[in-house]
Parts: sequence; C-alpha cells; structure tokens
Amino acid sequence: MEQVLSENNLVISVDAMGGDNSPRIVVEGINLAHKNNPDIHFLLFGDEEKISADFKRFPQMKNYCKIIHTPEFVRNEDKPSQVIRNKNTSMYMAIDAVRRGEAEAVISAGNTGALMAISKMLLKTIQRIHRPAICTNIPHKSGMCVMLDLGANTECSAVNLAEFAIIGNILARHTLEIERPRIALLNIGAEEMKGREEIHQAAKMIKSTHLDLNFIGYIEPHQIGEGYADVIVSDGFTGNIALKTMEGTAKLISGLLKGTIKKSIWAKIGLPFLLPVIFTLKKRMDPRKYNGAMFVGLNGLSVKSHGGTDSLGFSYAIDNASKLVRQHFVQTIRDEVEHVDLDELSQDILYDVY
Amino acid sequence: MEQVLSENNLVISVDAMGGDNSPRIVVEGINLAHKNNPDIHFLLFGDEEKISADFKRFPQMKNYCKIIHTPEFVRNEDKPSQVIRNKNTSMYMAIDAVRRGEAEAVISAGNTGALMAISKMLLKTIQRIHRPAICTNIPHKSGMCVMLDLGANTECSAVNLAEFAIIGNILARHTLEIERPRIALLNIGAEEMKGREEIHQAAKMIKSTHLDLNFIGYIEPHQIGEGYADVIVSDGFTGNIALKTMEGTAKLISGLLKGTIKKSIWAKIGLPFLLPVIFTLKKRMDPRKYNGAMFVGLNGLSVKSHGGTDSLGFSYAIDNASKLVRQHFVQTIRDEVEHVDLDELSQDILYDVY
Repeated sequence: MEQVLSENNLVISVDAMGGDNSPRIVVEGINLAHKNNPDIHFLLFGDEEKISADFKRFPQMKNYCKIIHTPEFVRNEDKPSQVIRNKNTSMYMAIDAVRRGEAEAVISAGNTGALMAISKMLLKTIQRIHRPAICTNIPHKSGMCVMLDLGANTECSAVNLAEFAIIGNILARHTLEIERPRIALLNIGAEEMKGREEIHQAAKMIKSTHLDLNFIGYIEPHQIGEGYADVIVSDGFTGNIALKTMEGTAKLISGLLKGTIKKSIWAKIGLPFLLPVIFTLKKRMDPRKYNGAMFVGLNGLSVKSHGGTDSLGFSYAIDNASKLVRQHFVQTIRDEVEHVDLDELSQDILYDVY
Repeated sequence: MEQVLSENNLVISVDAMGGDNSPRIVVEGINLAHKNNPDIHFLLFGDEEKISADFKRFPQMKNYCKIIHTPEFVRNEDKPSQVIRNKNTSMYMAIDAVRRGEAEAVISAGNTGALMAISKMLLKTIQRIHRPAICTNIPHKSGMCVMLDLGANTECSAVNLAEFAIIGNILARHTLEIERPRIALLNIGAEEMKGREEIHQAAKMIKSTHLDLNFIGYIEPHQIGEGYADVIVSDGFTGNIALKTMEGTAKLISGLLKGTIKKSIWAKIGLPFLLPVIFTLKKRMDPRKYNGAMFVGLNGLSVKSHGGTDSLGFSYAIDNASKLVRQHFVQTIRDEVEHVDLDELSQDILYDVY
C-alpha cells in the first residue's frame, strides 16, 4: 500500500469511527465505492481491531486501503471547542492527513460541528477565499443542482456570496459534469432591487468576474425545483432554511398521502398498481444519492456523510468526493481565485454607489 | 344601507377592480361570504356601471353592500410610487375608507406592492408598533398555523420580531380560534446560540412579555409541517424564502408524481381507485382556503387576495378578515402593546449583554 500511495496521489482520508454503525458501514461503503473508483486509495483512521474485523469480509480491500490506528474517537455529544484540542481522535487524525498532504479529501459520518471546527482549524481557508461554505447537490425536475452555503455562515457579505458563486461553479462542473453551469443568487424576487443589499452587491460583483456569462441573476425558491439554475448561492442561514423547508414539505406531503390512503378501502385496492410509480419516485428522490455535505473553500475537501446512512449512502458520498479529488478541486479553486480580486471589486462597487 | 351602516360597525371595504376577473369574482365572492357572515357590511369601490351589472344576479346584495363609484383603478404594472399619489383609484379610496373609520378592513385582489404602499401611507402603523408585517395561515399535519413576516421587511430587529410575536398571537387566537397559541421563532437550530443575533435577542424579549408561557423557543423549518407551533415568527426575507420553498417543493413532488404516472400503464389502471384520496388531499391543501395575505400592524387591516383566485377563494379571504373585524383585531393589538414597552425591554437586554 505504501508504494501504491506514493505512485498515485488520489487519496481520500476516512474517519472510520463516525456515524451510527461504524466502522461496518464505512468499510462496506468504501468497498462499494471502489467499483466505480478503482483509482482512489483510502486512509482509514480508527480502532484497528474493529476495522480489521470488518475487513475480513473484503480481503481485497487491503490493496487500496491503509488502516491507521487511533486510540480515541469524537462522540456526537462532544462540543467543537473540546474536540479541536484532542489530537488522538480518528476524526482529528483523518483531517490532519489532508493538512499533511497525504490525502486530498476527508470523509466522516460523525459529529458535524466537530468536523467543521477541526477542518477549519487544520485546513484553513484557501488564500483569497474569506469563508468556507457547506454545500450539497439537490434534485430538481430534470436533474440536480449545487446549493451553497447551507449553514457554515449565518451572515454573509457580498464578497462571501461572490466567492461561493466561484466555488459553486467549479462544483457543478466537477460533480454534475455541466460544462457551463447557470449560476443564480437565491432571493425573494426577480427584480433588481428586491431582497437584501449584500445580494444586490454580490450580483454586481459576479457580473464583473469571469462568471459574467454564466450568471443568470436572482432565483426565487419556488423556481429551484423547475431546474432554472445549476448553482444556487445564498448565505448559510437562508440556504439552511430553504433546505430544511424542502425536507419538511416533502415529509408533510408524503405523510398526508399515506394517512389519506390508509383511510380509503378503494385506495388500498388501487395501490398495488401504483407500486412501480412509487418505486421510481423513491429511487429518484432517494436521499442516499444526495448524501455528502461538502465543506468547501478550505485547503482540502471535507465531506460530511449523514450519520444514519447505510453503506450505499456512504458510497455515494465517496463517489462525489472522488469526482472532486480526481479533478483536483482545491487546486482549481486556487487557480480561479488567483485572477479575481473580489476585495478590490467590492471597493469599486462601493464607490459606484456613493 | 346608510342606516344599516350606522347601526352596525362591522364593515369591510372592498377594491372591486383588483384581480384577474374583477369585478365579477369580487361580487360573487362577497355573495358567497355573506352566507357565513350575515353581520358584515361591505363598501364596494370601483366602476359603478360594471359592479351594478354584476349585482343584477344577486338583487339581495344591496341590503348589505354599498357601491361607491371611482373613476380609475390601479393596474398590475403600476409602480407603488405612482399609485400613492392618485387618490381616484378604487384601491386608494377603499383603503381611505378604513382611514376615515368607515370600515375596519380593506380587501383587494390587485397589485400587491400598491396595496402595501397605500395602506402603509394612509393607515400608518399602530402606536408602539414599529413595522407592519405580512402574514398568512399555512397548513400543517393536523391543522393550520400563522406565519409572519412573509415579505414586508427584508431585515428585522429583535424589537420587530417580538412585535410580530404579539400580533401573531392575536391572529392565531382570532382566526384559528386557538386559546393559547404556541409561539416560535423560525431558526436554523434548536440550541440557544444557533442562528442570528437578533433572533436570540427577540427570544429574550418575548420571554419578558405576557407571551412568556406561550413561547416555545426556536422552530426549524422541517418542524413547521409537524404542527409544533401555532405562530411562526421570522423576518420578511426568511419567511418569504420558506413560503416559496414550500410552494416549490409541493409543485416539484406533484409534477414528478404526475410525470411518473403518465409513463406507467399499471399506474393508469390503478389511478381511478385513488381518486377519492386525491380529492381529499386536494381539498385539504386547496390554496383557496389559505387565500388572503394580511398586512397587519397598521391602524386598520389590509388584506391581499390572490389576483388569480376564483369567487370561492375571494370569499375565504373575506371570511378570514371577517373573523378579525368581528373581534376588533386592531383595537386588540393596541390594548396589548399598551402594556409592553419593547423599546425599554430591548435596552434592558442590551445592558444584559455588556
């Protein structure tokens, strides 16, 4: 393995102890993901004995995986302020492998706040990028789009939003394979003066960058599902509100549907005919497919898998991260921001106003 | 009619020229609403000839309606800055009737921005209330809840949010007939320090008012559908984002469902059995039932009906407004805020911090 690693720099570091059924789900997930990603190698951090026990079912895994024993792991109830001081946890060491340049990305199904805090502390934001963002892919009518920020920053300046547009553009190109992603700012109206001041300024800034032609202006939340945009940019508070509202509405509708069907004898007779439809829809909306919230803008990619996901869900998170690692996502951001001085642009736009 | 009006002060003023099929829809809507609200009288502002023509089908309407001719009306494309200067439109005159004390509420299906601007200018905010808010009732798993602000204020202070909580509490009592509404602030997490500073401060302020026992803390968007709260308070930007995300997600799911059913011969066979379920759900989620966005916090109630609604939808907007008028909603707000000095509370909370 040592040798393989040095020949091939496509390495993902994994916190094997995060999530509800670790390390079993993690090991199974890596095994599944390997089929689509034979070029990716993995560093697994955690309890060596437990991981090795799970490895027994997949003996070929030792060809592309290396286990690094860690004496401790982060618990769900641990506070970020505590975990950043403990260098012996599987999460800390997995992230540190990215800092040391041994891996390009880290994945964990553990404590979200801890992952964000340690990642931010160890990896630091890319030069010229002011704030990292959380993003994920979400489904729309005819495909998927990238949405960011989903909660890393409760308040954002115009510069932050413009940076998210640059990062989101690269994400859509790399993960959704869209050559020229349509970028939009999430807002409460399409007219130029609707919404908050920082959104208006961000629009002006994005128009002054290389993204000018990709930028389609403002998108209202009810248009996301229509597939009007490939990259949806907002501050973390608004993005989190929108994402959780989507979740809640989907749950409300499916709950009402189930409840009403239960009460109708006719519906129960007709239901078996609709099973193929339900199956297709379930497959289309399967949350495991969208598993993996990415923490982007740092010197290394940090991916949070859902804590309760199964091995298939974990493998999707790896798939997504692999696409980015393979295309050297972090270096692409560095290259693109090198030619855009958003702080200067921001000054120009401010002078424009007064 | 003149005599009736002076005996009975439950009067609603109506802009008969607003919306897609006015004044026909408006006249039919009033006729429908009268059945549930025989105690309410109406002042109809608009083209007398057209309104009278529609009245011919309902001759009894002249017993509880009075037509006031206006030479002009507000168009959908008119800018708020223009319409506030034209005193001859049906919308302006209908709102002015509330200012003059001839009616307690005004309803229009016309230009939203114009209705807000004229209402704000003529009715002015209630003393001690700093900002008006837009609110509506939305469905959850087992009933309905009040949500505000939905777009009147893109940014809000803690004082504004606390005021919305006071108004929302009255709205839930009067329109949903909930004796002790559970009030929550919309936020991105349940923990005390999650989200924005003004939300934390608003929570402290609400706890210091008479609403202390009704206040249940923060609600996350995916919990709205669960029916955790009866009053959901947010700034207008966030509320608008949440409302439009609900709309969009519902549309996305029903679109995907229809699209998938179309492609399946089995589903087409089973579908007729599910018609009662679809009918029940449609009835439950019927947007006409939630018609009527209320502009509250002013000296008079201003209600915006959806421009494309039908007569039943318009009658629901009247129903809702009638409940508030019958219980003298505006006076109730005045009485409640008289005993709460939010500005002073706000100072106390600021001193607490430093």
